[in-house]
Amino acid sequence: MSSPNDLTEISSNKMFGGYQKVYSHNSNVLGCTMNFGIYLPPQAEENKVPIIYWLSGLTCSEANFIQKAGAQRYASEQGVILVAPDTSPRGLNIPGDSDSWDFGVGAGFYVDATQKPWSDNYKMFSYITKELLEAVNKNFPVMEGKQSIMGHSMGGHGALICALRNPGLYRSVSAFAPISNPIECPWGQKAFSGYLGPQETGNWADWDATELVRKYNGPPLIIFIDQGTSDQFYNERQLLPENLLAACKQSNVPVILKFRDHYDHSYFYIATFIGEHIEYHVTQLNF
Amino acid sequence: MSSPNDLTEISSNKMFGGYQKVYSHNSNVLGCTMNFGIYLPPQAEENKVPIIYWLSGLTCSEANFIQKAGAQRYASEQGVILVAPDTSPRGLNIPGDSDSWDFGVGAGFYVDATQKPWSDNYKMFSYITKELLEAVNKNFPVMEGKQSIMGHSMGGHGALICALRNPGLYRSVSAFAPISNPIECPWGQKAFSGYLGPQETGNWADWDATELVRKYNGPPLIIFIDQGTSDQFYNERQLLPENLLAACKQSNVPVILKFRDHYDHSYFYIATFIGEHIEYHVTQLNF
Repeated sequence: MSSPNDLTEISSNKMFGGYQKVYSHNSNVLGCTMNFGIYLPPQAEENKVPIIYWLSGLTCSEANFIQKAGAQRYASEQGVILVAPDTSPRGLNIPGDSDSWDFGVGAGFYVDATQKPWSDNYKMFSYITKELLEAVNKNFPVMEGKQSIMGHSMGGHGALICALRNPGLYRSVSAFAPISNPIECPWGQKAFSGYLGPQETGNWADWDATELVRKYNGPPLIIFIDQGTSDQFYNERQLLPENLLAACKQSNVPVILKFRDHYDHSYFYIATFIGEHIEYHVTQLNF
Repeated sequence: MSSPNDLTEISSNKMFGGYQKVYSHNSNVLGCTMNFGIYLPPQAEENKVPIIYWLSGLTCSEANFIQKAGAQRYASEQGVILVAPDTSPRGLNIPGDSDSWDFGVGAGFYVDATQKPWSDNYKMFSYITKELLEAVNKNFPVMEGKQSIMGHSMGGHGALICALRNPGLYRSVSAFAPISNPIECPWGQKAFSGYLGPQETGNWADWDATELVRKYNGPPLIIFIDQGTSDQFYNERQLLPENLLAACKQSNVPVILKFRDHYDHSYFYIATFIGEHIEYHVTQLNF
């Protein structure tokens, strides 16, 4: 099997002066072939540029963000690379991995699983923060250390825990409608039970943004949360941004929580505010 | 069956301060239920605004443009409604209507068919230019007569023939990678043979933009064509914008043909230049 750093180009489309590409590579961490999307702005043809990772939500592949968020326009204007990974290992056919839309395929939850049969492959946390990061840095003109991370829903949770568990690795973090306190909501409880085992023994708090904030002691990090008020899953209490907000305030971690009136959980909402997020990250990256 | 002017809301998502909605209605012209997308900018909450129709290409439904073009941002900025119809009748199960991707379902070609079994339903030209237009004007705050039309590929052809066959109905017309001379390319020849009958008797020239330009004698109309140079179908001679350009020059019809280096036929290309097209139409609509 070839190295994770050996990339195969799947597609390449010119867009806003740069290129939206999809690559595949072998992941040793996940034990399967993975696709990821990358937008290279025109500035990357001659110079190294900063980079922002986007983590997608439940059921998504690398394709959703690329096709629906309209983010490339802003990345082109700002001169920043955007990377959109997949949301779980693929093609493994582990028994039960496709029985539900909120667990298994398309629902890796950005943790490193500890429970069989998931623990051999479902290590999206290590994939995103180490293996993919290295593959991208080796292959593309990335300014060293100038990386940020953002995501949506399950991927918002992913962005938050990737940043909070790796102090200093990402210059900034933001999240649209993140699952902010997974140990307190049905989605998170189901996923963590499966991937990490029972709450009593599974160290759930190590993978929960609201819990991680309480013990964060790395470089200054602002938590930027975006939430639509007509979001079905917010109203069903799957997201719980108020819990994260309270933990940030208790722990003196700076936090921005922007409520967006009448916006829902869809990519129509994301498309509306992705430009503001990219501009925010670029400001932090250039600081 | 209810009137085509009675709309049923299928979805509504807030986006860029306005709403992206999908409606269904009964089409008497097509003999089936049709969906269409409509973006209502924030300005439409209090005032009548201009409107631009978007006609999609082969295999598309109303969803592609809504999800992939990123057009709503510009419509919100400019204060213009965008309407995205479907590309053929749906759900009729006419024998042969789903045998190929470039004829029948998803491939109505914006003509009024004259040949059985298509002639009872495949009347997308009348649907777009009369029935849908009336339904939209009755239900939404459209400034009277302030409408333009644009499209992509088969829908670029559609936009051109809708404008050229209805002098004065649309204030402006533009097209991304249009099938500019269908009677001279394989896609057009297949579709016109099926919907209109043999070339000798089928009046093909009445549905071909390059032929229609030669006899256009309505109010001044500028033909705005956009074409990527790495477009596979352009290079396979399915699109033939040069033929349309030559006819415009011969007939003293003003034409703008913009080639875009290295851009292809995809929505990544459309997303890059849709803002320029919307700005162009709004300028013409406000003239």
